[in-house]
Amino acid sequence: MKNYKIAILAGDGIGPEITAEAVKVLKVIEERNDVSFELLPAAFGACAYFESGSAFPHQTKAICDEADAILKGPIGLSHEDSKRIPIDEQPERGALLPLRRRYNTYANFRPVSLPKSLAHFSPLKPEIIGEGIDLMIVRELVGGLYFGEKEMGVNDAGLRYVRETLEYDESQIHQIMQQAFKLASKRRKLLHNIHKSNVLKSSVLWNEVMEEVAKEYPEVQVVNMLVDAAATALCLKPTQFDVMVMENMFGDILSDQGGGILGSLGLMPSACIGPDKAYYEPSHGSAPDIAGKNIANPYSMIGSVAMMLENSFDMEAEAKNVWAAMQGVFADGYSTADLSKPGSGVTMISTVEFGDKVVEKL
Amino acid sequence: MKNYKIAILAGDGIGPEITAEAVKVLKVIEERNDVSFELLPAAFGACAYFESGSAFPHQTKAICDEADAILKGPIGLSHEDSKRIPIDEQPERGALLPLRRRYNTYANFRPVSLPKSLAHFSPLKPEIIGEGIDLMIVRELVGGLYFGEKEMGVNDAGLRYVRETLEYDESQIHQIMQQAFKLASKRRKLLHNIHKSNVLKSSVLWNEVMEEVAKEYPEVQVVNMLVDAAATALCLKPTQFDVMVMENMFGDILSDQGGGILGSLGLMPSACIGPDKAYYEPSHGSAPDIAGKNIANPYSMIGSVAMMLENSFDMEAEAKNVWAAMQGVFADGYSTADLSKPGSGVTMISTVEFGDKVVEKL
Ligand SMILES: CC(C)[C@H](C(=O)O)[C@@H](O)C(=O)O
Ligand SMILES: CC(C)[C@H](C(=O)O)[C@@H](O)C(=O)O
Repeated sequence: MKNYKIAILAGDGIGPEITAEAVKVLKVIEERNDVSFELLPAAFGACAYFESGSAFPHQTKAICDEADAILKGPIGLSHEDSKRIPIDEQPERGALLPLRRRYNTYANFRPVSLPKSLAHFSPLKPEIIGEGIDLMIVRELVGGLYFGEKEMGVNDAGLRYVRETLEYDESQIHQIMQQAFKLASKRRKLLHNIHKSNVLKSSVLWNEVMEEVAKEYPEVQVVNMLVDAAATALCLKPTQFDVMVMENMFGDILSDQGGGILGSLGLMPSACIGPDKAYYEPSHGSAPDIAGKNIANPYSMIGSVAMMLENSFDMEAEAKNVWAAMQGVFADGYSTADLSKPGSGVTMISTVEFGDKVVEKL
Repeated sequence: MKNYKIAILAGDGIGPEITAEAVKVLKVIEERNDVSFELLPAAFGACAYFESGSAFPHQTKAICDEADAILKGPIGLSHEDSKRIPIDEQPERGALLPLRRRYNTYANFRPVSLPKSLAHFSPLKPEIIGEGIDLMIVRELVGGLYFGEKEMGVNDAGLRYVRETLEYDESQIHQIMQQAFKLASKRRKLLHNIHKSNVLKSSVLWNEVMEEVAKEYPEVQVVNMLVDAAATALCLKPTQFDVMVMENMFGDILSDQGGGILGSLGLMPSACIGPDKAYYEPSHGSAPDIAGKNIANPYSMIGSVAMMLENSFDMEAEAKNVWAAMQGVFADGYSTADLSKPGSGVTMISTVEFGDKVVEKL
């Protein structure tokens, strides 16, 4: 029997609610497979900061170090509330970015996926969704503006200024390109390389390295697309994409646009993979406005579990079952209040009920 | 009688075709008003580079310096063709950015506007468009990553690297905020401040200065929104926005997403305003794939003329007439092949015919 330790960082806002549902799914998987999951809850995010003065406490680091995989809920506070925490201790800078850096989780996989049967969730017309959207954003996660030097001060003219750096070296680009090409060659063999080489020198290097890696994957067709053009295309014809690769900040923006075209960020799980460790998280924020109301859909969190099963534990079949179970619940006509409007013909259920129904299906 | 000199930079790709239609409109305005336009054509972009070795030749600079306003077509080549020009001479780096810098056109206004009657152009469902989309993106245009220092080289480990800087000082932020608040106070008194302060220090300063300027405009309601959340919201509920203000790169991406939700970048004119000079341009590229085919819609270029009439020549009434004329042509059931599919019930007309019909309406 395999034993896996999973660090559970429930996070802020709706985090604990949707994490609880994801944990239910892990229990089912454990019961019916020759596997045991040791769940290690740990404090992370604004809640941890208020508890202990650190958004990523030592003890949480120790638990994560020990874990075979990490399941992380969304973190963060509302714009106003976040002013209660000093800038550098805010959970994004004080916990999430340090987590990414600690485990060098350079490859962030964000599926933007909507089967035809769920087209009604999308703000896009059915003819745009066609047979369904099924693309994967591969986002570089530990470089670029996110991790470059930052300087704030007052310049010679007495003006406040800020300067931050966007940095990449070829090895960082090389490793994310390898991931993107590998995935593309397993899927539809089509890779959209998203860049801004008409302005950014970093994109010039990005494209150079991309062309070098492309030689190892002659079967993959590469389409180069400017990031702005990609933002247009994601609205106009998302079905043209299969795998898209891009640097950190572009990936942040376009993946949330991806959530937009699906109809909700609540449909966006993700995997963040490093050389030795991976963590899994929804792409969305902690949604403080709907926290505690038992209405947030746990799809992104349960989907993150599915990605963990596949990537960290080689349980591809069970991962597929989890996806199918969630789609089954939607297909049965159920939805949650964050995803659907009352009167849209669905039966509205709570976060907990959604989790229960997924478990039943499984 | 007023005399205005207008530099005409027709640009690359579809530029000359759509510029010709915009010039027709200028002639009509001239005929029926107490105004004369001296049109000064000048080479700009890849075409200028191939002709003279410079994408922004001295003579063009002299003409622009002298002009009261500049009408600029799209520039640039396809990804493959652009490799024929050294990186720093490519028209974006060699002409467009120098133009913006030369006239310090820090305020870029990009209307994202679709009356309910044109909702069929949009990939969004009619219920998302509602009574129509009518928002204005106010983009900072001469700062940030676009104009920061850039360094490419090989580091101590022998790896190629690149480092570029995102810089802002408070005066740059202050001036764009003034523009945004002023506009918001003339419109629906609602300003969305788009930022990424949970990661970028530049956004921290951005928000600080925003709050200072906000005090001068107590009548304007400010909503702070992360750039990634804004990318989601532009798909899910674009009608929530009226004026949105953001830094350069965010504005590049979100305004093209704006073109996506309208149904085409061809519906995106823009105004680029500096302290002493303004230029007007479509937000889209030169579309080399459809150049020379007489199918590109000149809306964005004629719309840029409308913005010029209003902003540079105080001819607000005529500007309104131009908008109305274009919408009238669409309302009569005409469209161009870049905007509409054959069989969508519209009568397909050419670039030239569209221009002619606008002129007729005027
Ligand atoms: C919370 C924030 C720091 C984070 C990011 O910008 O990467 C989030 O938006 C995401 O996309 O994972
Ligand atoms: C052509 C390019 C340099 C330009 C930009 O990035 O600003 C364009 O995309 C735009 O939006 O005006």
